[in-house]
Amino acid sequence: MRNAVCLLSGGLDSATCLALARREGYACYALSFDYGQRHKVELAAARRVAAALGVERHIVAAIGLDAFGGSALTAEIAVPKARSAAEMGRGIPVTYVPARNTIFLSFALAWAEVLESSDIFIGVNALDYSGYPDCRPEFIQAYERMANLATKAGVEGRTHLKIHAPLLELGKAQIVKLAHELGVKFSLTHSCYDPGAEGRPCGQCDACLLRRKGFEEAGIEDR
Amino acid sequence: MRNAVCLLSGGLDSATCLALARREGYACYALSFDYGQRHKVELAAARRVAAALGVERHIVAAIGLDAFGGSALTAEIAVPKARSAAEMGRGIPVTYVPARNTIFLSFALAWAEVLESSDIFIGVNALDYSGYPDCRPEFIQAYERMANLATKAGVEGRTHLKIHAPLLELGKAQIVKLAHELGVKFSLTHSCYDPGAEGRPCGQCDACLLRRKGFEEAGIEDR
Repeated sequence: MRNAVCLLSGGLDSATCLALARREGYACYALSFDYGQRHKVELAAARRVAAALGVERHIVAAIGLDAFGGSALTAEIAVPKARSAAEMGRGIPVTYVPARNTIFLSFALAWAEVLESSDIFIGVNALDYSGYPDCRPEFIQAYERMANLATKAGVEGRTHLKIHAPLLELGKAQIVKLAHELGVKFSLTHSCYDPGAEGRPCGQCDACLLRRKGFEEAGIEDR
Repeated sequence: MRNAVCLLSGGLDSATCLALARREGYACYALSFDYGQRHKVELAAARRVAAALGVERHIVAAIGLDAFGGSALTAEIAVPKARSAAEMGRGIPVTYVPARNTIFLSFALAWAEVLESSDIFIGVNALDYSGYPDCRPEFIQAYERMANLATKAGVEGRTHLKIHAPLLELGKAQIVKLAHELGVKFSLTHSCYDPGAEGRPCGQCDACLLRRKGFEEAGIEDR
């Protein structure tokens, strides 16, 4: 059984991505981050998802990105609410965390190297997404190329490290259908950028709106 | 005055690199890492160097790379001693920390984005080095290419982010001469991988041997 490192935020996309890696037969090492996000409820979701999907190990790495600021997810900046699809399509929102996926992938790369794994899974998608630069296919390709020059395995030509981004070209409705087919328990996942008491989703941030739209279009109930 | 993010380990190379950035007129934001290295003496050196060279701000980011293991610098693996130049030239040593420079540059990228800086300095060198994959010019080039796709600024075409690695093609003796010319206080820096009591260098690890060779060849005294 081959090892894979799977980035896991606790949201629907990364849970689906992990379930896909499991179905493909990988022994999965799940990696989450306590990066100074204002809401830790997603880390609880990540732990539930990792346990439910039977990973080999789950590491929650503490990395204080809040030291740098610059995002509504780590600093005291208001999360935008009730934006239309047109508004979401325009520019990069304040919920963008500078270089977040670059950093997350770099830690995954470190762990993959130690595990002698040549497979990293990340649940980014470029269609129904929030306009983040580090969710685009050209970013993932450039990252993979760099990663193959960065490591011992790459230099020694022992392996070709692959960044798997299986949701990259899927819309939210397709992801919901895929998750349903894979048996992902929706109730374990968490998507909201601005949860209320007891982690209840706000229903109005981009993440909540995209999630709702996905379930509606897929004709599946979000429990 | 333009802002630059400067990676600073506390060693001679990164101190020289920071001094160069200062001479080029940048307002410097120094970034060091408490990455679970067994010896914290290098962080004390980084603080001394940052203060001596007049940086705008110095952040020491805590990132627990020791959670992944796999290196003599973070796990209980013996640091090799008294290796010849030929031995150093052969393969990648156990002091290599998986994906370390990839991770360090990713945090620098995050900070640069928040500071709206398009300049990152890193003191890697590819000649008299220890055989690390992430100190090679092809790695730095691939990283820069990726970084320009990863960020808001890159996507909006506002700027071209540059990874400056001014020591890349210099030998250790040339770095020592340059540091001397720039007025870097050698006594503030720390290079040893395996320091003894009170941070005294062991004199036998690759880093100590390369440093000694550099000073000898430059004909300069290492205080």
